[in-house]
Amino acid sequence: MTSKLHPLHNVRIVLCQTSHPGNIGAAARAIKTMGLSQLYLIKPKIFPNKEADAMACGAIDLLEKAVVCETLEQALTGCAFAIGLSARVRNLSHELVSARQAATQAAEMASNQPVALVFGTEMSGLSNAELDLCQLLAMIPTDADFSSLNLAAAVQVMSYEVRMAILEAAANSNNIATPPLYPLAATEDIEGFYRHLEETLLKIGFLNPAAPGRLMQRVRRIYARARLEKEEVNILRGILKHTQHPNPRA
Amino acid sequence: MTSKLHPLHNVRIVLCQTSHPGNIGAAARAIKTMGLSQLYLIKPKIFPNKEADAMACGAIDLLEKAVVCETLEQALTGCAFAIGLSARVRNLSHELVSARQAATQAAEMASNQPVALVFGTEMSGLSNAELDLCQLLAMIPTDADFSSLNLAAAVQVMSYEVRMAILEAAANSNNIATPPLYPLAATEDIEGFYRHLEETLLKIGFLNPAAPGRLMQRVRRIYARARLEKEEVNILRGILKHTQHPNPRA
Repeated sequence: MTSKLHPLHNVRIVLCQTSHPGNIGAAARAIKTMGLSQLYLIKPKIFPNKEADAMACGAIDLLEKAVVCETLEQALTGCAFAIGLSARVRNLSHELVSARQAATQAAEMASNQPVALVFGTEMSGLSNAELDLCQLLAMIPTDADFSSLNLAAAVQVMSYEVRMAILEAAANSNNIATPPLYPLAATEDIEGFYRHLEETLLKIGFLNPAAPGRLMQRVRRIYARARLEKEEVNILRGILKHTQHPNPRA
Repeated sequence: MTSKLHPLHNVRIVLCQTSHPGNIGAAARAIKTMGLSQLYLIKPKIFPNKEADAMACGAIDLLEKAVVCETLEQALTGCAFAIGLSARVRNLSHELVSARQAATQAAEMASNQPVALVFGTEMSGLSNAELDLCQLLAMIPTDADFSSLNLAAAVQVMSYEVRMAILEAAANSNNIATPPLYPLAATEDIEGFYRHLEETLLKIGFLNPAAPGRLMQRVRRIYARARLEKEEVNILRGILKHTQHPNPRA
Protein backbone atom coordinates (compact mmCIF):
# COMPACT_ATOMS: atom_id res chain seq x y z
CA MET A 1 0.00 0.00 0.00
CA THR A 2 2.99 2.32 0.15
CA SER A 3 3.43 4.47 -2.92
CA LYS A 4 6.57 6.19 -4.15
CA LEU A 5 4.72 8.79 -6.18
CA HIS A 6 5.50 12.43 -5.54
CA PRO A 7 3.46 13.34 -2.44
CA LEU A 8 1.27 15.71 -4.51
CA HIS A 9 0.11 12.74 -6.58
CA ASN A 10 -0.64 10.78 -3.45
CA VAL A 11 -3.44 13.17 -2.51
CA ARG A 12 -6.91 12.21 -3.71
CA ILE A 13 -9.64 14.81 -3.90
CA VAL A 14 -12.94 12.99 -3.46
CA LEU A 15 -16.23 14.75 -4.26
CA CYS A 16 -19.38 13.02 -3.00
CA GLN A 17 -22.61 13.28 -4.99
CA THR A 18 -21.91 16.69 -6.43
CA SER A 19 -25.06 18.36 -7.82
CA HIS A 20 -23.60 21.01 -10.13
CA PRO A 21 -21.21 19.89 -12.87
CA GLY A 22 -19.72 23.39 -12.97
CA ASN A 23 -18.41 22.79 -9.46
CA ILE A 24 -16.68 19.61 -10.60
CA GLY A 25 -14.94 21.50 -13.39
CA ALA A 26 -13.95 24.38 -11.11
CA ALA A 27 -12.64 21.88 -8.56
CA ALA A 28 -10.53 20.19 -11.25
CA ARG A 29 -9.01 23.53 -12.17
CA ALA A 30 -8.41 24.34 -8.49
CA ILE A 31 -6.57 21.11 -7.74
CA LYS A 32 -4.50 21.24 -10.93
CA THR A 33 -3.24 24.75 -10.12
CA MET A 34 -1.96 23.30 -6.86
CA GLY A 35 -0.14 20.46 -8.61
CA LEU A 36 -2.55 17.74 -7.47
CA SER A 37 -3.88 15.27 -10.00
CA GLN A 38 -6.13 12.63 -8.42
CA LEU A 39 -9.84 13.38 -8.73
CA TYR A 40 -12.47 10.88 -7.54
CA LEU A 41 -16.19 11.41 -8.04
CA ILE A 42 -18.82 9.50 -6.09
CA LYS A 43 -22.12 9.33 -8.00
CA PRO A 44 -21.95 12.78 -9.56
CA LYS A 45 -25.43 13.96 -10.50
CA ILE A 46 -24.40 15.08 -14.01
CA PHE A 47 -21.07 13.97 -15.44
CA PRO A 48 -19.40 14.19 -17.90
CA ASN A 49 -20.84 17.51 -18.92
CA LYS A 50 -20.05 20.59 -21.01
CA GLU A 51 -20.35 23.01 -18.10
CA ALA A 52 -17.83 20.96 -16.15
CA ASP A 53 -15.46 21.13 -19.13
CA ALA A 54 -15.97 24.88 -19.47
CA MET A 55 -15.22 25.55 -15.80
CA ALA A 56 -12.18 23.25 -15.85
CA CYS A 57 -10.44 25.50 -18.36
CA GLY A 58 -7.04 23.90 -18.93
CA ALA A 59 -7.74 21.08 -16.47
CA ILE A 60 -9.93 18.92 -18.71
CA ASP A 61 -7.30 16.18 -18.53
CA LEU A 62 -8.14 15.76 -14.85
CA LEU A 63 -11.83 15.35 -15.68
CA GLU A 64 -11.02 12.80 -18.37
CA LYS A 65 -9.05 10.63 -16.01
CA ALA A 66 -11.30 11.24 -12.98
CA VAL A 67 -12.30 8.00 -11.26
CA VAL A 68 -16.09 7.74 -11.00
CA CYS A 69 -17.24 5.45 -8.16
CA GLU A 70 -20.49 4.17 -6.75
CA THR A 71 -19.45 4.40 -3.12
CA LEU A 72 -16.98 6.32 -0.98
CA GLU A 73 -15.53 3.02 0.14
CA GLN A 74 -14.49 2.28 -3.44
CA ALA A 75 -12.87 5.69 -3.79
CA LEU A 76 -10.85 5.17 -0.63
CA THR A 77 -9.46 1.81 -1.75
CA GLY A 78 -5.72 1.79 -1.08
CA CYS A 79 -5.90 4.97 0.98
CA ALA A 80 -4.27 5.01 4.38
CA PHE A 81 -5.99 8.07 5.66
CA ALA A 82 -9.15 10.01 4.82
CA ILE A 83 -9.93 13.55 5.97
CA GLY A 84 -13.55 14.67 5.78
CA LEU A 85 -14.33 18.34 5.27
CA SER A 86 -17.05 19.82 7.36
CA ALA A 87 -18.69 23.22 7.30
CA ARG A 88 -20.09 22.86 10.78
CA VAL A 89 -19.07 21.45 14.11
CA ARG A 90 -20.61 18.00 14.52
CA ASN A 91 -21.53 16.50 17.81
CA LEU A 92 -19.15 13.91 19.22
CA SER A 93 -17.94 11.72 16.37
CA HIS A 94 -14.54 12.80 15.06
CA GLU A 95 -11.41 14.57 16.00
CA LEU A 96 -11.87 18.03 14.54
CA VAL A 97 -8.90 20.10 13.37
CA SER A 98 -8.36 23.21 11.27
CA ALA A 99 -7.72 22.97 7.53
CA ARG A 100 -4.09 23.85 8.13
CA GLN A 101 -3.56 21.19 10.76
CA ALA A 102 -5.26 18.62 8.56
CA ALA A 103 -3.04 19.58 5.64
CA THR A 104 0.07 19.07 7.74
CA GLN A 105 -1.05 15.56 8.62
CA ALA A 106 -2.04 14.79 5.03
CA ALA A 107 1.33 15.99 3.73
CA GLU A 108 3.17 13.82 6.19
CA MET A 109 1.28 10.69 5.19
CA ALA A 110 1.32 11.46 1.47
CA SER A 111 5.08 11.16 1.50
CA ASN A 112 4.67 7.41 1.23
CA GLN A 113 1.02 6.50 0.81
CA PRO A 114 -2.25 7.76 -0.67
CA VAL A 115 -4.45 10.03 1.43
CA ALA A 116 -7.89 11.44 0.65
CA LEU A 117 -9.67 14.73 1.22
CA VAL A 118 -13.39 14.06 1.12
CA PHE A 119 -15.96 16.73 0.27
CA GLY A 120 -19.73 16.34 0.69
CA THR A 121 -22.62 17.69 -1.35
CA GLU A 122 -23.19 21.40 -1.95
CA MET A 123 -26.36 21.40 0.14
CA SER A 124 -25.72 19.17 3.12
CA GLY A 125 -22.06 18.18 3.22
CA LEU A 126 -21.01 14.68 4.19
CA SER A 127 -23.48 12.10 5.49
CA ASN A 128 -22.78 10.34 8.77
CA ALA A 129 -22.08 7.12 6.87
CA GLU A 130 -19.49 8.92 4.76
CA LEU A 131 -17.96 10.54 7.84
CA ASP A 132 -17.57 7.12 9.40
CA LEU A 133 -15.09 6.27 6.67
CA CYS A 134 -12.89 9.24 7.55
CA GLN A 135 -10.23 9.25 10.27
CA LEU A 136 -10.21 12.98 10.79
CA LEU A 137 -12.59 15.88 10.34
CA ALA A 138 -11.28 19.22 9.09
CA MET A 139 -12.92 22.62 9.12
CA ILE A 140 -12.03 25.70 7.13
CA PRO A 141 -12.42 28.53 9.65
CA THR A 142 -15.12 30.64 7.99
CA ASP A 143 -17.01 33.63 9.33
CA ALA A 144 -19.53 32.54 11.93
CA ASP A 145 -22.39 34.43 10.27
CA PHE A 146 -21.58 33.43 6.68
CA SER A 147 -19.95 30.06 6.31
CA SER A 148 -21.38 29.34 2.86
CA LEU A 149 -18.13 28.42 1.12
CA ASN A 150 -18.60 27.31 -2.49
CA LEU A 151 -17.56 23.67 -3.03
CA ALA A 152 -14.81 24.50 -5.53
CA ALA A 153 -13.62 27.31 -3.23
CA ALA A 154 -13.32 24.82 -0.36
CA VAL A 155 -11.41 22.44 -2.65
CA GLN A 156 -9.16 25.36 -3.63
CA VAL A 157 -8.34 26.26 -0.02
CA MET A 158 -7.66 22.66 1.00
CA SER A 159 -5.57 21.91 -2.09
CA TYR A 160 -3.60 25.08 -1.44
CA GLU A 161 -3.00 24.14 2.18
CA VAL A 162 -1.89 20.64 1.25
CA ARG A 163 0.46 21.99 -1.40
CA MET A 164 1.95 24.46 1.10
CA ALA A 165 2.42 21.70 3.66
CA ILE A 166 4.07 19.39 1.13
CA LEU A 167 6.38 22.14 -0.15
CA GLU A 168 7.26 23.08 3.40
CA ALA A 169 8.07 19.50 4.31
CA ALA A 170 10.28 19.24 1.21
CA ALA A 171 12.04 22.51 2.04
CA ASN A 172 12.70 21.38 5.60
CA SER A 173 14.18 18.13 4.41
CA ASN A 174 16.50 19.89 1.98
CA ASN A 175 17.22 22.76 4.32
CA ILE A 176 18.37 25.00 1.50
CA ALA A 177 18.96 28.66 2.10
CA THR A 178 17.45 30.79 -0.65
CA PRO A 179 20.01 33.20 -2.05
CA PRO A 180 19.07 36.89 -2.24
CA LEU A 181 18.09 38.05 -5.75
CA TYR A 182 20.48 40.99 -5.95
CA PRO A 183 23.63 41.57 -3.91
CA LEU A 184 22.98 43.78 -0.91
CA ALA A 185 25.30 46.68 -0.27
CA ALA A 186 28.10 46.13 2.22
CA THR A 187 28.23 48.08 5.47
CA GLU A 188 31.07 50.26 4.22
CA ASP A 189 29.07 51.20 1.13
CA ILE A 190 26.05 52.09 3.24
CA GLU A 191 28.16 54.16 5.61
CA GLY A 192 29.76 55.93 2.65
CA PHE A 193 26.26 56.79 1.45
CA TYR A 194 25.26 58.17 4.87
CA ARG A 195 28.37 60.37 5.00
CA HIS A 196 27.67 61.64 1.49
CA LEU A 197 24.04 62.28 2.48
CA GLU A 198 24.94 64.18 5.64
CA GLU A 199 27.41 66.37 3.77
CA THR A 200 24.74 67.09 1.15
CA LEU A 201 22.06 67.92 3.72
CA LEU A 202 24.46 70.39 5.34
CA LYS A 203 25.24 71.95 1.99
CA ILE A 204 21.60 72.51 1.04
CA GLY A 205 20.81 73.80 4.52
CA PHE A 206 18.38 71.07 5.57
CA LEU A 207 20.63 69.88 8.36
CA ASN A 208 21.53 72.57 10.88
CA PRO A 209 25.03 71.85 12.24
CA ALA A 210 24.21 73.86 15.35
CA ALA A 211 21.12 71.76 16.09
CA PRO A 212 21.26 68.49 14.16
CA GLY A 213 18.77 66.79 16.44
CA ARG A 214 18.01 63.22 15.49
CA LEU A 215 17.66 63.87 11.77
CA MET A 216 20.43 61.56 10.58
CA GLN A 217 19.17 58.79 12.82
CA ARG A 218 15.69 59.11 11.41
CA VAL A 219 16.98 59.04 7.86
CA ARG A 220 19.17 56.03 8.58
CA ARG A 221 16.14 54.22 9.93
CA ILE A 222 14.35 54.60 6.58
CA TYR A 223 17.20 53.15 4.54
CA ALA A 224 17.96 50.47 7.09
CA ARG A 225 14.47 49.11 6.62
CA ALA A 226 14.87 49.19 2.85
CA ARG A 227 17.92 46.82 2.92
CA LEU A 228 19.71 48.67 0.15
CA GLU A 229 21.24 46.77 -2.72
CA LYS A 230 24.68 47.65 -4.08
CA GLU A 231 23.23 49.15 -7.24
CA GLU A 232 20.67 51.18 -5.32
CA VAL A 233 23.40 52.83 -3.25
CA ASN A 234 24.97 53.91 -6.54
CA ILE A 235 21.67 55.45 -7.67
CA LEU A 236 21.17 57.29 -4.39
CA ARG A 237 24.75 58.62 -4.45
CA GLY A 238 24.20 59.73 -8.04
CA ILE A 239 21.26 61.79 -6.82
CA LEU A 240 23.40 63.31 -4.05
CA LYS A 241 26.14 64.20 -6.52
CA HIS A 242 23.64 66.00 -8.74
CA THR A 243 22.10 67.69 -5.69
CA GLN A 244 25.45 69.19 -4.84
CA HIS A 245 26.25 70.01 -8.46
CA PRO A 246 23.03 70.45 -10.41
CA ASN A 247 23.42 69.95 -14.11
CA PRO A 248 19.99 70.48 -15.69
CA ARG A 249 19.64 69.28 -19.27
CA ALA A 250 18.54 71.74 -21.91
CA MET B 1 -5.58 57.76 8.96
CA THR B 2 -5.44 55.20 11.71
CA SER B 3 -8.59 53.20 11.95
CA LYS B 4 -9.97 51.35 14.92
CA LEU B 5 -12.10 49.01 12.84
CA HIS B 6 -11.71 45.30 13.42
CA PRO B 7 -8.68 44.30 11.33
CA LEU B 8 -10.87 42.19 9.02
CA HIS B 9 -12.73 45.34 8.00
CA ASN B 10 -9.46 47.18 7.38
CA VAL B 11 -8.65 44.86 4.47
CA ARG B 12 -9.73 46.08 1.05
CA ILE B 13 -10.07 43.63 -1.80
CA VAL B 14 -9.47 45.59 -5.00
CA LEU B 15 -10.34 44.06 -8.37
CA CYS B 16 -8.93 45.88 -11.41
CA GLN B 17 -10.91 45.89 -14.65
CA THR B 18 -12.56 42.55 -14.15
CA SER B 19 -14.02 41.15 -17.40
CA HIS B 20 -16.51 38.56 -16.13
CA PRO B 21 -19.20 39.72 -13.70
CA GLY B 22 -19.52 36.14 -12.42
CA ASN B 23 -16.01 36.46 -11.04
CA ILE B 24 -16.96 39.61 -9.14
CA GLY B 25 -19.90 37.78 -7.54
CA ALA B 26 -17.81 34.72 -6.69
CA ALA B 27 -15.13 36.99 -5.22
CA ALA B 28 -17.73 38.72 -3.04
CA ARG B 29 -18.87 35.35 -1.71
CA ALA B 30 -15.26 34.29 -1.13
CA ILE B 31 -14.35 37.36 0.88
CA LYS B 32 -17.57 37.31 2.93
CA THR B 33 -16.98 33.70 4.00
CA MET B 34 -13.65 34.88 5.38
CA GLY B 35 -15.25 37.73 7.33
CA LEU B 36 -13.89 40.51 5.09
CA SER B 37 -16.24 43.21 3.87
CA GLN B 38 -14.48 45.86 1.78
CA LEU B 39 -14.78 45.34 -1.97
CA TYR B 40 -13.41 47.91 -4.43
CA LEU B 41 -13.90 47.60 -8.19
CA ILE B 42 -11.82 49.54 -10.68
CA LYS B 43 -13.67 50.00 -13.96
CA PRO B 44 -15.44 46.63 -14.00
CA LYS B 45 -16.43 45.73 -17.56
CA ILE B 46 -19.99 44.74 -16.61
CA PHE B 47 -21.39 45.77 -13.23
CA PRO B 48 -23.88 45.60 -11.60
CA ASN B 49 -25.09 42.42 -13.26
CA LYS B 50 -27.38 39.44 -12.68
CA GLU B 51 -24.62 36.87 -13.09
CA ALA B 52 -22.58 38.65 -10.43
CA ASP B 53 -25.58 38.53 -8.09
CA ALA B 54 -26.16 34.83 -8.80
CA MET B 55 -22.55 33.90 -8.06
CA ALA B 56 -22.48 36.03 -4.91
CA CYS B 57 -25.15 33.84 -3.31
CA GLY B 58 -25.66 35.28 0.17
CA ALA B 59 -23.04 37.99 -0.35
CA ILE B 60 -25.09 40.41 -2.44
CA ASP B 61 -24.78 42.99 0.33
CA LEU B 62 -21.07 43.22 -0.44
CA LEU B 63 -21.83 43.88 -4.12
CA GLU B 64 -24.35 46.55 -3.20
CA LYS B 65 -21.87 48.48 -1.09
CA ALA B 66 -18.87 47.80 -3.33
CA VAL B 67 -16.94 50.98 -4.14
CA VAL B 68 -16.60 51.43 -7.90
CA CYS B 69 -13.63 53.61 -8.89
CA GLU B 70 -12.10 54.99 -12.06
CA THR B 71 -8.49 54.48 -11.02
CA LEU B 72 -6.50 52.31 -8.65
CA GLU B 73 -5.16 55.44 -7.01
CA GLN B 74 -8.72 56.35 -5.97
CA ALA B 75 -9.31 52.90 -4.53
CA LEU B 76 -6.13 53.14 -2.47
CA THR B 77 -6.98 56.51 -0.93
CA GLY B 78 -6.35 56.31 2.79
CA CYS B 79 -4.54 53.01 2.46
CA ALA B 80 -1.15 52.67 4.05
CA PHE B 81 -0.10 49.53 2.26
CA ALA B 82 -1.05 47.84 -0.99
CA ILE B 83 -0.14 44.29 -1.97
CA GLY B 84 -0.36 43.37 -5.64
CA LEU B 85 -1.09 39.78 -6.61
CA SER B 86 0.98 38.34 -9.41
CA ALA B 87 0.76 35.02 -11.21
CA ARG B 88 4.28 35.25 -12.52
CA VAL B 89 7.69 36.40 -11.43
CA ARG B 90 8.35 39.87 -12.82
CA ASN B 91 11.77 41.23 -13.57
CA LEU B 92 13.24 43.39 -10.83
CA SER B 93 10.58 45.88 -9.72
CA HIS B 94 9.09 44.70 -6.44
CA GLU B 95 9.84 42.74 -3.35
CA LEU B 96 8.14 39.40 -4.01
CA VAL B 97 6.80 37.23 -1.20
CA SER B 98 4.50 34.25 -0.86
CA ALA B 99 0.78 34.68 -0.25
CA ARG B 100 1.29 33.58 3.33
CA GLN B 101 4.08 36.05 4.05
CA ALA B 102 2.06 38.84 2.46
CA ALA B 103 -0.94 37.93 4.61
CA THR B 104 1.15 38.16 7.76
CA GLN B 105 2.27 41.67 6.84
CA ALA B 106 -1.24 42.70 5.85
CA ALA B 107 -2.66 41.40 9.12
CA GLU B 108 -0.10 43.31 11.13
CA MET B 109 -0.85 46.60 9.42
CA ALA B 110 -4.62 46.06 9.35
CA SER B 111 -4.61 46.17 13.12
CA ASN B 112 -4.64 49.96 12.93
CA GLN B 113 -4.99 51.09 9.31
CA PRO B 114 -6.48 50.12 5.95
CA VAL B 115 -4.50 47.82 3.67
CA ALA B 116 -5.34 46.63 0.16
CA LEU B 117 -4.97 43.39 -1.78
CA VAL B 118 -4.96 44.28 -5.47
CA PHE B 119 -5.95 41.79 -8.19
CA GLY B 120 -5.48 42.36 -11.93
CA THR B 121 -7.55 41.28 -14.90
CA GLU B 122 -8.37 37.65 -15.66
CA MET B 123 -6.25 37.67 -18.80
CA SER B 124 -3.17 39.68 -18.02
CA GLY B 125 -3.04 40.47 -14.31
CA LEU B 126 -1.86 43.84 -13.07
CA SER B 127 -0.36 46.44 -15.39
CA ASN B 128 3.02 47.93 -14.58
CA ALA B 129 1.35 51.25 -13.73
CA GLU B 130 -0.92 49.45 -11.26
CA LEU B 131 2.03 47.56 -9.79
CA ASP B 132 3.84 50.83 -9.23
CA LEU B 133 1.14 51.78 -6.71
CA CYS B 134 1.78 48.62 -4.67
CA GLN B 135 4.47 48.30 -2.02
CA LEU B 136 4.71 44.54 -2.16
CA LEU B 137 4.10 41.79 -4.68
CA ALA B 138 2.61 38.49 -3.56
CA MET B 139 2.46 35.22 -5.40
CA ILE B 140 0.28 32.21 -4.70
CA PRO B 141 2.64 29.29 -5.23
CA THR B 142 0.89 27.44 -8.04
CA ASP B 143 2.07 24.50 -10.10
CA ALA B 144 4.76 25.59 -12.55
CA ASP B 145 3.03 23.95 -15.51
CA PHE B 146 -0.51 25.09 -14.69
CA SER B 147 -0.70 28.38 -12.87
CA SER B 148 -4.09 29.39 -14.25
CA LEU B 149 -5.79 30.20 -10.98
CA ASN B 150 -9.32 31.54 -11.42
CA LEU B 151 -9.66 35.15 -10.18
CA ALA B 152 -12.24 34.32 -7.50
CA ALA B 153 -10.13 31.32 -6.45
CA ALA B 154 -7.13 33.61 -5.99
CA VAL B 155 -9.29 36.01 -3.97
CA GLN B 156 -10.46 33.03 -1.90
CA VAL B 157 -6.95 31.87 -1.10
CA MET B 158 -5.70 35.37 -0.20
CA SER B 159 -8.78 36.18 1.89
CA TYR B 160 -8.34 32.88 3.69
CA GLU B 161 -4.67 33.56 4.38
CA VAL B 162 -5.39 37.05 5.65
CA ARG B 163 -8.16 35.73 7.91
CA MET B 164 -5.82 33.06 9.28
CA ALA B 165 -3.09 35.64 9.91
CA ILE B 166 -5.50 38.03 11.65
CA LEU B 167 -6.93 35.26 13.84
CA GLU B 168 -3.42 34.13 14.69
CA ALA B 169 -2.31 37.68 15.54
CA ALA B 170 -5.36 38.09 17.78
CA ALA B 171 -4.56 34.85 19.55
CA ASN B 172 -0.95 35.95 20.09
CA SER B 173 -1.82 39.45 21.26
CA ASN B 174 -3.75 38.03 24.17
CA ASN B 175 -0.38 37.29 25.65
CA ILE B 176 1.87 40.02 24.33
CA ALA B 177 1.03 43.68 23.85
CA THR B 178 2.71 44.83 20.63
CA PRO B 179 4.00 48.40 20.73
CA PRO B 180 1.97 50.75 18.54
CA LEU B 181 3.40 51.36 15.10
CA TYR B 182 3.90 54.90 13.90
CA PRO B 183 1.21 55.74 11.38
CA LEU B 184 2.33 54.83 7.88
CA ALA B 185 1.94 57.37 5.09
CA ALA B 186 -1.15 57.01 2.92
CA THR B 187 -0.93 56.18 -0.78
CA GLU B 188 -1.70 59.77 -1.77
CA ASP B 189 1.12 61.08 0.45
CA ILE B 190 3.58 58.58 -1.02
CA GLU B 191 2.53 59.45 -4.56
CA GLY B 192 2.90 63.15 -3.73
CA PHE B 193 6.44 62.42 -2.57
CA TYR B 194 7.26 60.51 -5.77
CA ARG B 195 5.98 63.39 -7.91
CA HIS B 196 8.05 65.85 -5.89
CA LEU B 197 11.07 63.57 -6.20
CA GLU B 198 10.72 63.17 -9.97
CA GLU B 199 10.38 66.93 -10.43
CA THR B 200 13.50 67.43 -8.32
CA LEU B 201 15.54 64.83 -10.18
CA LEU B 202 14.64 66.54 -13.44
CA LYS B 203 15.62 69.90 -12.04
CA ILE B 204 19.06 68.75 -10.85
CA GLY B 205 19.62 66.88 -14.10
CA PHE B 206 19.83 63.38 -12.68
CA LEU B 207 16.74 62.25 -14.53
CA ASN B 208 16.97 62.71 -18.29
CA PRO B 209 13.47 63.41 -19.64
CA ALA B 210 14.57 62.17 -23.07
CA ALA B 211 15.73 58.82 -21.64
CA PRO B 212 14.18 58.25 -18.21
CA GLY B 213 14.74 54.50 -18.36
CA ARG B 214 13.53 52.69 -15.28
CA LEU B 215 15.01 55.13 -12.82
CA MET B 216 11.75 56.12 -11.12
CA GLN B 217 10.70 52.51 -10.77
CA ARG B 218 14.00 51.60 -9.19
CA VAL B 219 13.74 54.48 -6.74
CA ARG B 220 10.12 53.59 -5.92
CA ARG B 221 11.25 50.08 -5.14
CA ILE B 222 13.64 51.34 -2.45
CA TYR B 223 10.99 53.38 -0.66
CA ALA B 224 8.32 50.73 -1.10
CA ARG B 225 10.47 48.35 0.88
CA ALA B 226 11.04 50.96 3.57
CA ARG B 227 7.26 51.30 4.31
CA LEU B 228 7.46 55.05 4.86
CA GLU B 229 5.83 56.58 7.88
CA LYS B 230 3.90 59.85 7.61
CA GLU B 231 6.58 61.80 9.41
CA GLU B 232 9.32 60.31 7.24
CA VAL B 233 7.59 61.48 4.07
CA ASN B 234 7.68 64.97 5.57
CA ILE B 235 11.43 64.67 6.19
CA LEU B 236 12.11 63.41 2.67
CA ARG B 237 10.01 66.17 1.13
CA GLY B 238 11.88 68.69 3.29
CA ILE B 239 15.11 67.43 1.74
CA LEU B 240 13.62 67.78 -1.76
CA LYS B 241 12.47 71.32 -1.04
CA HIS B 242 15.97 72.28 0.08
CA THR B 243 17.46 70.48 -2.90
CA GLN B 244 15.44 72.66 -5.24
CA HIS B 245 16.05 75.81 -3.17
CA PRO B 246 19.30 75.43 -1.25
CA ASN B 247 19.56 77.63 1.76
CA PRO B 248 22.94 76.98 3.37
CA ARG B 249 23.36 78.27 6.89
CA ALA B 250 26.26 80.57 7.60
